[in-house]
Amino acid sequence: MTIETRSEHRCFGGTLGLYSHASDALGLKANFAVFVPPGATAAAPVPVVYCLAGLTCTEETFVIKANALRFAAEHGLALVAPDTSPRGAGVAGEDASYDLGTGAGFYLDATQEPWATHYRMGTYLSDELPGLVEDAFPLDPARRGIMGHSMGGHGALVHGLKAPGFWRSISAFAPIVHPAAVPWGEKALGAYLGPDRALWNAWDATALLNAGHTHPTSIMIDQGESDQFLERELQPHHLEAAARTSGQALTLNRRPGYDHSYWFIQSFIGDHIAHHAAILKSL
Amino acid sequence: MTIETRSEHRCFGGTLGLYSHASDALGLKANFAVFVPPGATAAAPVPVVYCLAGLTCTEETFVIKANALRFAAEHGLALVAPDTSPRGAGVAGEDASYDLGTGAGFYLDATQEPWATHYRMGTYLSDELPGLVEDAFPLDPARRGIMGHSMGGHGALVHGLKAPGFWRSISAFAPIVHPAAVPWGEKALGAYLGPDRALWNAWDATALLNAGHTHPTSIMIDQGESDQFLERELQPHHLEAAARTSGQALTLNRRPGYDHSYWFIQSFIGDHIAHHAAILKSL
Repeated sequence: MTIETRSEHRCFGGTLGLYSHASDALGLKANFAVFVPPGATAAAPVPVVYCLAGLTCTEETFVIKANALRFAAEHGLALVAPDTSPRGAGVAGEDASYDLGTGAGFYLDATQEPWATHYRMGTYLSDELPGLVEDAFPLDPARRGIMGHSMGGHGALVHGLKAPGFWRSISAFAPIVHPAAVPWGEKALGAYLGPDRALWNAWDATALLNAGHTHPTSIMIDQGESDQFLERELQPHHLEAAARTSGQALTLNRRPGYDHSYWFIQSFIGDHIAHHAAILKSL
Repeated sequence: MTIETRSEHRCFGGTLGLYSHASDALGLKANFAVFVPPGATAAAPVPVVYCLAGLTCTEETFVIKANALRFAAEHGLALVAPDTSPRGAGVAGEDASYDLGTGAGFYLDATQEPWATHYRMGTYLSDELPGLVEDAFPLDPARRGIMGHSMGGHGALVHGLKAPGFWRSISAFAPIVHPAAVPWGEKALGAYLGPDRALWNAWDATALLNAGHTHPTSIMIDQGESDQFLERELQPHHLEAAARTSGQALTLNRRPGYDHSYWFIQSFIGDHIAHHAAILKSL
């Protein structure tokens, strides 16, 4: 469990660091970012929100582009950002398209070859990374939230709904809410999990809600109404309907004029950090 | 004066756009970014701050990494970010090093071949770009400020001191304050302006102050004390001494633990935007 420090920077009185480690789950070296706010100590560990980026991104994208650190520092929250896929797995074709393979791990465990050996971001996120960083940094394992954007919004929703006692707060920007029903998801779930669509339900937020996997807190989602992927890939109405049926509390803010970019995310990130802070600090 | 829109994004209720145009000053296509805050109209144009990035950067760097848009929107300021050099000038060796040529225009007009034809970021910034964007966007030419980082801090200081009636407010993060005395500056000024060091003084903030070119407002500078370039390239004591001698009002905030990065800039950008807003909105 050795962590290699690539760089550390003072930011808002805390520390933003970029790190690497040899991941057991992935069988490869993996990168991640951590922001520790001012005042966090081993004796006074702070709540932590895991931030999952979308297709083509890395562990740096969210911390550089979301403008979240100011609010994390103000609320006394730590942030952890993993990479979006294994790197250098050597799977034939993994770099051929932006929505499968490198940069497109979908935060799940692949069961199908040639992906199954290394494409295990599910276990990496649900087990290995929290164990690693919460041991090495002054983070409180009892107060852990999860958020994400697009494919990362999918990751936040499915992990949060599958393990509500582990992930105590959930939010997302422009998430893929029902991957089994949209092209990005059909391509990825088909490749990683195989053709049996029944097996996809464990990695589909709408299906999880419909199967009764709810979360005790309200889920916050922001969605731009000018998002170029809204109709084809995101379709938040699926999640709204499943939340209604299952009794899941959900706030879905539709934002006129906003697109899929981090220009959208930064405009509302303060609300999301406050959402996590309110829940996690009440625990 | 045709502006090509590469992309526009709603952000904080305003619009962040990335644009291109055929520059007369540079003789090449040039890129720039503009943020127009909510509420700006042709009938009610807003103050504008030009934001100059450092070595290796582009017109996107400052607007993506500085976390400035939130504060610009709150204060009702527009932001304009030019590129850091001509692109594609075709000068032999212009891509050979990070601190000369591409990405290293130093916001001056080169007089020496092979640079003199295209490396004219001085005139581009002092004349062409303001004329272009203040005609096309709801910006108030009477309320124009300038700020920058590192090489861009040098640009903000020299342009502001040379034309205090044009640039009504000045600030900088970790600026090169005395290029004639440090390696980055000696290399660039020598190449662009030639060996006669007397000619360098027109593009050196410390020399300009010593020659009596002061600004009627207080200049705000933030400098990280753990900046890896502090001793070799930045040396803010030169500017402090020249300000004292010349009677230039200067606030130099030394920030313990902070380095040269945008993690530092974002931590204090709110103070800088407020500085410009206070001056420009009082005009």
